[in-house]
Amino acid sequence: MTGTTLDDYTDRYARRVRGMTASEIRALFAVASRPEVVSLAGGAPYIAALPLDAVGEMLAKLGAEQGTTTLQYGIGQGTLDLRERICEVMALSGIDAGCGASPEDVVVTVGGQQALDLVARLFLDPGDVVLAEGPTYVGALGVFQAAQAQVVHVPMDDDGLVPEALEATIAAVARSGRRAKFLYTIPTYQNPAGVTLTDERRERVLDICERAGLLVVEDDPYGQLGFDGDAPAPLRARRRHGVFYLSTFSKTFAPGLRVGWILAPHAVRDKLVIANEAQVLCPSTFAQAAVSTYLATMPWREQLKIYREVYRERRDALLDALADLMPEGTTWTEPQGGLFVWATLPDGLDAKAMMPRAIAARVAYVPGTGFYADGSGRASMRLNYSFPAPDRIREGVRRLATVLEQEMAMRRVFGAVGGTGAGRRGRPGADAPGPDLA
Amino acid sequence: MTGTTLDDYTDRYARRVRGMTASEIRALFAVASRPEVVSLAGGAPYIAALPLDAVGEMLAKLGAEQGTTTLQYGIGQGTLDLRERICEVMALSGIDAGCGASPEDVVVTVGGQQALDLVARLFLDPGDVVLAEGPTYVGALGVFQAAQAQVVHVPMDDDGLVPEALEATIAAVARSGRRAKFLYTIPTYQNPAGVTLTDERRERVLDICERAGLLVVEDDPYGQLGFDGDAPAPLRARRRHGVFYLSTFSKTFAPGLRVGWILAPHAVRDKLVIANEAQVLCPSTFAQAAVSTYLATMPWREQLKIYREVYRERRDALLDALADLMPEGTTWTEPQGGLFVWATLPDGLDAKAMMPRAIAARVAYVPGTGFYADGSGRASMRLNYSFPAPDRIREGVRRLATVLEQEMAMRRVFGAVGGTGAGRRGRPGADAPGPDLA
Repeated sequence: MTGTTLDDYTDRYARRVRGMTASEIRALFAVASRPEVVSLAGGAPYIAALPLDAVGEMLAKLGAEQGTTTLQYGIGQGTLDLRERICEVMALSGIDAGCGASPEDVVVTVGGQQALDLVARLFLDPGDVVLAEGPTYVGALGVFQAAQAQVVHVPMDDDGLVPEALEATIAAVARSGRRAKFLYTIPTYQNPAGVTLTDERRERVLDICERAGLLVVEDDPYGQLGFDGDAPAPLRARRRHGVFYLSTFSKTFAPGLRVGWILAPHAVRDKLVIANEAQVLCPSTFAQAAVSTYLATMPWREQLKIYREVYRERRDALLDALADLMPEGTTWTEPQGGLFVWATLPDGLDAKAMMPRAIAARVAYVPGTGFYADGSGRASMRLNYSFPAPDRIREGVRRLATVLEQEMAMRRVFGAVGGTGAGRRGRPGADAPGPDLA
Repeated sequence: MTGTTLDDYTDRYARRVRGMTASEIRALFAVASRPEVVSLAGGAPYIAALPLDAVGEMLAKLGAEQGTTTLQYGIGQGTLDLRERICEVMALSGIDAGCGASPEDVVVTVGGQQALDLVARLFLDPGDVVLAEGPTYVGALGVFQAAQAQVVHVPMDDDGLVPEALEATIAAVARSGRRAKFLYTIPTYQNPAGVTLTDERRERVLDICERAGLLVVEDDPYGQLGFDGDAPAPLRARRRHGVFYLSTFSKTFAPGLRVGWILAPHAVRDKLVIANEAQVLCPSTFAQAAVSTYLATMPWREQLKIYREVYRERRDALLDALADLMPEGTTWTEPQGGLFVWATLPDGLDAKAMMPRAIAARVAYVPGTGFYADGSGRASMRLNYSFPAPDRIREGVRRLATVLEQEMAMRRVFGAVGGTGAGRRGRPGADAPGPDLA
């Protein structure tokens, strides 16, 4: 085998991964993890809030006393024990036996990411269309791009996905002679936008999808992390058919275990298990035992409250700092749960072009472009508040505000053709169909 | 969304998973796991041979003292710490810095299964041809079928893959106007055949692939589990270019953690990381820490010796029992390492058709058909000796021999048209191109 032939292969494959933004964000995280940088770029839970000594004791027993089971192979669907516990967790959000949720139709996955990848593997062929909120989860874009599918974004506002825009988008896709395979949506405490689909809109979105024969893939990693009362019931709690429900223990327990799940329509459950077996044989037996034992023996509902308290305080710190420090013309969402705020910069500023200056000023964020498949989002950024402490959050916003003031001063001196990337922003439609999230 | 539409989707996908044997084997394992059944059907390591108390202590510390790292997100390539340890493990097999192995080119995966799935995702398009030993690993068939690729088997004999047959197969594929994407091979202590590619043939196989411009995907889960001296050096130790090396800690430490790896040609390393991120975001940080701490602080080389001793004793028990008890005309391989013996039944018997009678006699195996993409293998079965104790192995073979004697008696009474499935065996080519593994 010559290097050339291998490179030929690589080039062939390169088509499949073109535009994948995962690596770009990986590079960003590497820089953002330097200790002198205040990183508002991450999406990590605050693991230090867990009772780590007790978790350690639990893990010791799983190895020493149950090792011949927990360190052994398991089955592709996941252990029945964990699937039963997952049903208890879902019941807390209103997805219970009454709406057809059953351990039989749960498939355990390697985090929420693999849950989505398995659904994509089932349904997507190259060239297929997927509808998704704009902006949407960067890891979902990675899945859809790997599947060579085309993402068409549907705008949001402060009340989440706009039903009229969804209808219009479905119609536009149909006019182009195609049909979307499914709607991918994070209705609650959306990543990255931090908005929540209202109760009334949930029903309308479901009706629209039902009329259009469009499957719904509901991703709900944050639904149990609400600060201001409970979130509206998940889409899956409202409809038995046509909704895949995806979630994970990454935000409510620990992401390092990589345990997520799919509650699948019964008709496709077996196909998902076979796809799971082909992909990873079985999810980690040890990680599953860790999660199910955590849910069985430790006060996980209390831990949810602790996470909520920590994140509420940090969200408040971020919102207060933004209100106090950001220059006029900056707007942002006000999340009622989850981990993220979506900020939009004063007219003419470019969050992606500004990144190097922000890093030099020792603050990091994720530019909005990472959350769109179509190059939109240059005027926006995602800010995370779950990981940094409140005083660090304020310091980060202070640094960010300074960078923004400098960018705006530059713009006043050099005009729209300056080095701020504002020229791109000036092009009509460059940021369309950007959501009205102010 | 109506149930019908969802079923339409399911039917569409059903094309992709047709013929997948994973579920069939899953059903078999469910039956085989009943305590009264002696299961020679599995492939599980003997986890009870691990120092579970010490492993438990290690896991406790990873949670209690390092939880803020080990329970947190990691990076898609896997931790540098583990990748360095993996290079130490590979060096034991002769894959060292001298042949270009480096932590930079290692990608950590969710077991060896995901390693193979990632390679398939990089290279395979629907309709592509993959060459693989006949018989081959059932999980590899699952990956290739999910990728909608066509597997063309290359026969083996007691010395492993037959080089002349490989050349002939490459030529036959070329004559059909296609080109194989890669050769998937398990050269050492092959699953399921239990044979090992000789030193001299390794060079010939590599030369043939190099001349044909054919990538080699070398799967080596068992290479360090040799009983009678060391195995010949892996293919990757002999060639820097054109060989993907895949392995796992599932057989040398514990499968329940799901930690495997790929040593990738440098040119595609980044693509694999991006594909890994799209699929699972990152491998479990906790599982990686468990493996790297195990390798750093526990006597893993001694543990390898313990596994080897246990399996050597069990292999001997199986081979002795087969020699003592099996009816004339039965043949089997004599593995020098690994977990499996491949047995071929007296002329006219059908291992798949016989399964229900074997289960009724409280013994289980995997029929040979599970290891072929083309329906071959009816006359053969895979027997596992790593998990059952020696006396259970002997008892299992005794039961199996009784079933065989009954089948043969039935055949003598009713002839080839009897209910033993022998009629199928009688069709010309029904078992071709079955390997000569006697």
